[in-house]
Amino acid sequence: MGGFFGAALKKDCVIDLFYGTDYNSHLGTKRGGMATYNETDGFIRSIHSLENTYFRTKFEGVLPRFRGNYGIGVISDNDSQPIVVNTHLGRFGIVTVAKIQNIKELEKEMLDQHVHFAETSSGDTNPTELVATLINEGEDFADGIRQAQLKIKGSCSMILLTPDGLIAARDKLGRTPIVIGKKDDGYAVTSETTAFPNLDYKPVRDLGPGEIVKITPDGITVLKEPLKEMQICSFLWVYYGFPTSTYEGINVEDARNKSGELMGKRDTTAIDCACGIPDSGVGMALGYANGKGVPYQRCVSKYTPTWPRSFTPSNQEMRDLVAKMKLIPNRELLNGKRVVFCDDSIVRGTQLKDNVRLFYEYGAKEVHIRIACPPLIYGCPFIGFTSSKSDMELLTRRIIAELEGDPDKNLEAYARTGSQEYNKLVEKMAEHFGLSSLKFSTIEDLVESIGMPKCKICTHCFDGSSHF
Amino acid sequence: MGGFFGAALKKDCVIDLFYGTDYNSHLGTKRGGMATYNETDGFIRSIHSLENTYFRTKFEGVLPRFRGNYGIGVISDNDSQPIVVNTHLGRFGIVTVAKIQNIKELEKEMLDQHVHFAETSSGDTNPTELVATLINEGEDFADGIRQAQLKIKGSCSMILLTPDGLIAARDKLGRTPIVIGKKDDGYAVTSETTAFPNLDYKPVRDLGPGEIVKITPDGITVLKEPLKEMQICSFLWVYYGFPTSTYEGINVEDARNKSGELMGKRDTTAIDCACGIPDSGVGMALGYANGKGVPYQRCVSKYTPTWPRSFTPSNQEMRDLVAKMKLIPNRELLNGKRVVFCDDSIVRGTQLKDNVRLFYEYGAKEVHIRIACPPLIYGCPFIGFTSSKSDMELLTRRIIAELEGDPDKNLEAYARTGSQEYNKLVEKMAEHFGLSSLKFSTIEDLVESIGMPKCKICTHCFDGSSHF
Amino acid sequence: MGGFFGAALKKDCVIDLFYGTDYNSHLGTKRGGMATYNETDGFIRSIHSLENTYFRTKFEGVLPRFRGNYGIGVISDNDSQPIVVNTHLGRFGIVTVAKIQNIKELEKEMLDQHVHFAETSSGDTNPTELVATLINEGEDFADGIRQAQLKIKGSCSMILLTPDGLIAARDKLGRTPIVIGKKDDGYAVTSETTAFPNLDYKPVRDLGPGEIVKITPDGITVLKEPLKEMQICSFLWVYYGFPTSTYEGINVEDARNKSGELMGKRDTTAIDCACGIPDSGVGMALGYANGKGVPYQRCVSKYTPTWPRSFTPSNQEMRDLVAKMKLIPNRELLNGKRVVFCDDSIVRGTQLKDNVRLFYEYGAKEVHIRIACPPLIYGCPFIGFTSSKSDMELLTRRIIAELEGDPDKNLEAYARTGSQEYNKLVEKMAEHFGLSSLKFSTIEDLVESIGMPKCKICTHCFDGSSHF
Amino acid sequence: MGGFFGAALKKDCVIDLFYGTDYNSHLGTKRGGMATYNETDGFIRSIHSLENTYFRTKFEGVLPRFRGNYGIGVISDNDSQPIVVNTHLGRFGIVTVAKIQNIKELEKEMLDQHVHFAETSSGDTNPTELVATLINEGEDFADGIRQAQLKIKGSCSMILLTPDGLIAARDKLGRTPIVIGKKDDGYAVTSETTAFPNLDYKPVRDLGPGEIVKITPDGITVLKEPLKEMQICSFLWVYYGFPTSTYEGINVEDARNKSGELMGKRDTTAIDCACGIPDSGVGMALGYANGKGVPYQRCVSKYTPTWPRSFTPSNQEMRDLVAKMKLIPNRELLNGKRVVFCDDSIVRGTQLKDNVRLFYEYGAKEVHIRIACPPLIYGCPFIGFTSSKSDMELLTRRIIAELEGDPDKNLEAYARTGSQEYNKLVEKMAEHFGLSSLKFSTIEDLVESIGMPKCKICTHCFDGSSHF
Repeated sequence: MGGFFGAALKKDCVIDLFYGTDYNSHLGTKRGGMATYNETDGFIRSIHSLENTYFRTKFEGVLPRFRGNYGIGVISDNDSQPIVVNTHLGRFGIVTVAKIQNIKELEKEMLDQHVHFAETSSGDTNPTELVATLINEGEDFADGIRQAQLKIKGSCSMILLTPDGLIAARDKLGRTPIVIGKKDDGYAVTSETTAFPNLDYKPVRDLGPGEIVKITPDGITVLKEPLKEMQICSFLWVYYGFPTSTYEGINVEDARNKSGELMGKRDTTAIDCACGIPDSGVGMALGYANGKGVPYQRCVSKYTPTWPRSFTPSNQEMRDLVAKMKLIPNRELLNGKRVVFCDDSIVRGTQLKDNVRLFYEYGAKEVHIRIACPPLIYGCPFIGFTSSKSDMELLTRRIIAELEGDPDKNLEAYARTGSQEYNKLVEKMAEHFGLSSLKFSTIEDLVESIGMPKCKICTHCFDGSSHF
Repeated sequence: MGGFFGAALKKDCVIDLFYGTDYNSHLGTKRGGMATYNETDGFIRSIHSLENTYFRTKFEGVLPRFRGNYGIGVISDNDSQPIVVNTHLGRFGIVTVAKIQNIKELEKEMLDQHVHFAETSSGDTNPTELVATLINEGEDFADGIRQAQLKIKGSCSMILLTPDGLIAARDKLGRTPIVIGKKDDGYAVTSETTAFPNLDYKPVRDLGPGEIVKITPDGITVLKEPLKEMQICSFLWVYYGFPTSTYEGINVEDARNKSGELMGKRDTTAIDCACGIPDSGVGMALGYANGKGVPYQRCVSKYTPTWPRSFTPSNQEMRDLVAKMKLIPNRELLNGKRVVFCDDSIVRGTQLKDNVRLFYEYGAKEVHIRIACPPLIYGCPFIGFTSSKSDMELLTRRIIAELEGDPDKNLEAYARTGSQEYNKLVEKMAEHFGLSSLKFSTIEDLVESIGMPKCKICTHCFDGSSHF
Repeated sequence: MGGFFGAALKKDCVIDLFYGTDYNSHLGTKRGGMATYNETDGFIRSIHSLENTYFRTKFEGVLPRFRGNYGIGVISDNDSQPIVVNTHLGRFGIVTVAKIQNIKELEKEMLDQHVHFAETSSGDTNPTELVATLINEGEDFADGIRQAQLKIKGSCSMILLTPDGLIAARDKLGRTPIVIGKKDDGYAVTSETTAFPNLDYKPVRDLGPGEIVKITPDGITVLKEPLKEMQICSFLWVYYGFPTSTYEGINVEDARNKSGELMGKRDTTAIDCACGIPDSGVGMALGYANGKGVPYQRCVSKYTPTWPRSFTPSNQEMRDLVAKMKLIPNRELLNGKRVVFCDDSIVRGTQLKDNVRLFYEYGAKEVHIRIACPPLIYGCPFIGFTSSKSDMELLTRRIIAELEGDPDKNLEAYARTGSQEYNKLVEKMAEHFGLSSLKFSTIEDLVESIGMPKCKICTHCFDGSSHF
Repeated sequence: MGGFFGAALKKDCVIDLFYGTDYNSHLGTKRGGMATYNETDGFIRSIHSLENTYFRTKFEGVLPRFRGNYGIGVISDNDSQPIVVNTHLGRFGIVTVAKIQNIKELEKEMLDQHVHFAETSSGDTNPTELVATLINEGEDFADGIRQAQLKIKGSCSMILLTPDGLIAARDKLGRTPIVIGKKDDGYAVTSETTAFPNLDYKPVRDLGPGEIVKITPDGITVLKEPLKEMQICSFLWVYYGFPTSTYEGINVEDARNKSGELMGKRDTTAIDCACGIPDSGVGMALGYANGKGVPYQRCVSKYTPTWPRSFTPSNQEMRDLVAKMKLIPNRELLNGKRVVFCDDSIVRGTQLKDNVRLFYEYGAKEVHIRIACPPLIYGCPFIGFTSSKSDMELLTRRIIAELEGDPDKNLEAYARTGSQEYNKLVEKMAEHFGLSSLKFSTIEDLVESIGMPKCKICTHCFDGSSHF
């Protein structure tokens, strides 16, 4: 997905920018970048690969290079950012959290107008540079951004760094969040409010869908009013968000606790203890233990001292190795126990399968899995969390293909909680993992634990409901 | 403290050595090192600073340089290791987990015999090189090691890498652990059994105090029998050990859960939820929540994606900054609540003070602290965990100085649970932090939760009981 | 100035590209870059700063990343190159040797058409990116390049890397050279023919002024015929060129030897020996010694083992330090001698002044200076060799200002060899340096030693004669 | 060979140490090191590999770490230096220029006394550490150094860094030089006087053979008087020395000029011009051109901008590649000419063979070679310049083996200038290279051009005359 942070202060913003961007690190694994501006030093920009080490490690050495009252930073899951360009609108920097489905068409459209793109090492057009060229078509920033928002299929939130201040623009359907914070010296915008407490910002408000605002140390000016419709991603609460973050006033850990508690209360399976699969399963499992009235026990630990990240490497083999090495079973706690393990979701199921085998090997008597969301039936075209080339990477589709002879058949039925097809699918998944039992949260419970009207939440990956 | 790992296999041991050493990373923050040996390549050795990044990050680039059936690796809290030396006993490599109180006397003794020491950047003698020169005084390895064990005041466990296999020798009083593991291809030794599951080793046994063994892929030969007395450090379970590690058959997380449960059962304070201060307070808090019958809630989260370590930097200012930046309060969960926070221990109390202030600022109605061990009254001369220059860095002594006009007065009374002095001390500490309530575990509960006879456990820092 | 190299081979061209580009290293000091293309790997590109170390040192580590039959490389004196862009003409890479006087106007023209520029760290438009956008205006490559050539004031030679082969285009007035070489596997193009012998290329021909050719491993196709007029820079022979290079069939060392010989033959000053100020004065001094019939002696040596480059750092203070440290006087050879030192030219004269002082200090009885070209009266607007902000950095102008009260007065007279003003100027310069005698080559001798018609050679910096 | 530099000043010596050591760079290619001392900062030490870049490049980044009035620096051809050790004599640093033939015996002697050696990556004992342990046997520094001098077979000059000043000790037979220089702030010692002019030192005197002196900013104190005998290496003037260096009052370039002039005057071969093979053949060739009365022409140039060093890499394949790439023939100057090329010596002859082939390929009509010293018949056991594993790497021996069926037969005869065997050997060598003619300097001319009595100069490699 990716995350960003921007600050516009009366004094130098570099320290806030550095830590504020770092607090978005769990949202991306490929590249990190920062850009600052002030009148005397102009634009200063730096981008580093994050594939081998952390944002902070890479940037603390170059911090003294930066200077500015205004700054933007980004943790990117793919492209190099920030882009800084010179255009007829003046010079500006830009960071995006975006998934552009129609990038090929937009690229062609621009090339035909004799626009050029700087080439990336991967040979593909840099999506953030494309967004910059779309904005460059407009008569002014607000006009250009609104045009870009409307042309892009998928999602795109952004922050621009200009000599006059920041311009923040949330995705037209609000699929990804932007929250504004305030302190004495000015304002910040962020994907994750986790960035606020230690930098002394108080949250002010979330931008509305499609809303475009200008941010200076003196205040917020609305350039374009928010649009009506919202389709914020439910996976922010299920998986992406850090526990201490809050979007649309709803805290991530709180939603996870609630979802676990709802499930624990209704679950009649006889068990000895509950345990979250670190990190994203912990919030749910704590709620579950509480709802069910069993102890929470750390039957498996993540070796956080050196394996902190959950989503790290981009190549599958390394991902498997990391998955294997970072989780450490605790024989003394597993031995002879009936354990419920909670996890956020099942995509391919590769890691979960290894984990389950390990739990049995280390003495677990029964292994039960509880999942914080419904089965993933549809790939995500909006923010790309499944990062899969095809829907067939989803375990559900591979099982449906087996059952129906066609992975795309009868999907609606499989997506309906409690249908015959749904039950069959879950049964096959439990078999696949060799589980004592397997249960998924329902869409209803998920929506209830988030607490917003269903029509405002994107649940496309579970029920195919969402629209572009 | 530091931790080490060694392997003696029928095949190349580099991968096991790399991951096995890495799994000791939570025990040290300064330097990491690895050395391998085989007949054709001889000794290969590399040392890197760990002050800016992780062992794995630093060593994965140089892994192809290493080759060998035998290898040793170390995470060191101070000196550069492994040392590789050429002596009349032949060439050997050595890693230690040691705190040598009488290093100056031993150094002088050796210099007077025209022994020389390679100088370190810090200007001090490298303790591991000193141990190597002490061993070099012996007629053979076992003789030299036993002499070194007897001469050293403090503690010293070690692994030697020789062309004939590894030699492991535990501290003469077993203050720090060494555990042997076995797999099809041979044997490993480690400070932390957390290194075993993912590398497919099964734990075989702990070395006894002072025991010296030779390890080849074919088996373990005892060179010197274990000594009678044991004084294993109780802080291994309170603070140092990773939750999945087990020493003397006793699991770290299990001991922490029990200690928390004992306290939770007896605690009559009215509260809404319990929360561990990450990471070392979590095991206790889970037990406490269970014993007390309240939900465990993550009212504060550590930003693990980039702030994984708990003990990182060596300079105080950076340590304070890290302490501030890595913990993130969750306003939604704190707001209006009466919360028990569990932590491992109170040394200076600087970070705890900041944390408590933060909890109140983010809405907590009451903040109660429960500590997994008794108050720290005496500095540790054995493994140096307090890393303090003087006992006056202990918050307890500063309060005793205030109460008695002398920081060293009446210590026995202050160390006795439930004495008038003890109660006064705890009351003053609670005031110091501004707490709703503060309770410490008792020595009796600590010993019970570990489950070994008190005479085998070092509790010097609580009661001054231990001997050299 | 900068230099470039390109290769189009039937087999992988990376090794040729690496060494071929390196052999242009004396032409620039800021940045080096390489890009390759083949069908399976697409475009691969890398750019490194050369301010601290050499092209080869920086690139040999990344060589394994490159693969391709076609490649371009550059040693740049300012901007980051190669640029790789995606345009309506397709993807292409580009390197330039250029000085664009009207860059601000061209930039504005492009911005007004909603073209954007990626920002550089310096805040200025990257000249090579500007050239790419000018080409992008054309209907095809040849058309776009010819338009760019005609729009640019100053000079611009370039090589493009396309999926179909290289396209090389020499500056419209041939101010900087491009030479084609051939070997069994294909073709190369280079600024410096010094790149050819060790890579087994035989020189084929120089491109004509403004000529545009397409180069594949199978041959050379002319896309645009050469233009009529030529104004090749005479400083290529005086200063820039490596001794073994040849442009328009005229060898650099040979021209230098001839120029020295002409001067030596006519010089009646009584001296003991001649010596070149390393490196660019050596070729002339060898000719001079020969013409004059005195021994050549190395009275001063450059410490080549670690101070190899003559033009290194961009900041003046460092340049002065380097100038001081790299030249080492030889007291034994200087002591009591009357020595002629030859140098290429006098710009600011700072280093020469220090050198002369040193020669006297180390015992020289008389110090005579002979310069390979006439006094520099006019700054260079075409290839920017004086790299000065203003003409006032020229020692000649500072002296003219002193003599005339106006640095711009009477320039024509000062530029005329043998005029009263010329003689006065040379006399003042000799005084400035404290010389026993000072003589400059005449334009006539310079033109004669090069051996081309004067109308084809740019001598603007000496006589202000050249046109745009 | 290696070279070193030391300074003892009233003010900080770091800048002098940095440049002074760098000016010894032509003497070694493996590692560089520096150590400083002052009372407040103690010993500071750093060592870097020089295999990929220069001393200055490696050390300028770490310069701010150093501080001290006293310092030593070294360019080493093999071992890591400086060593800093703690001993009964106190702490000291040490650098050496040494070749220890009996290192294995000395190592065993020390090991038997329970002395230990820190292991190097190569698995061999570090010679400089061995020297330090030998010194540590003495009752004081002078005593320990003199014992070390007497025990070592081969050669060993050294500088010690102690809290009380530097101690410099020249090899017992003066095989390698040490020269003292003075400036206002104190003293310096160096292997190469080239280090003095730009750092404002005036040469004071050479140390005598075996002489040991103490150096403080206030003066020089002789600790042990010089020994009688001297055997300074003649190759210092032939090959090692930088042209501007002077040992025993005799300048390197001057000796080379004389040697060339002597040969040129007597040479009756008809030729067009003379040219030195860069760099070490240039001094001789300039003298030759002068003696012979022909022009000196640069028919071949070294690409100094990036291939500055003549002796670089340690592995043979890379050495061959470098040899090929760095020299660039100048077709325009070679074409149709009869050229004398001068070179310092012929060891294996590999590079010369390639060069000669190249000269013919680029048009030379005749290629004549003149060598600055007699044929190398005996390997060097004293300073190891041939760096060969066996004498059979010498081209002379391979030819003798061919002629005699035994490489060790009749060596005395082959070493005698003008003998039948000598003439046959030179004839075969000329054939081997395909030369028009080949001539070597005679021992008599070599000694005359140096200008010291033959009994003081080591000519072992030519005539086997020297003693240990």
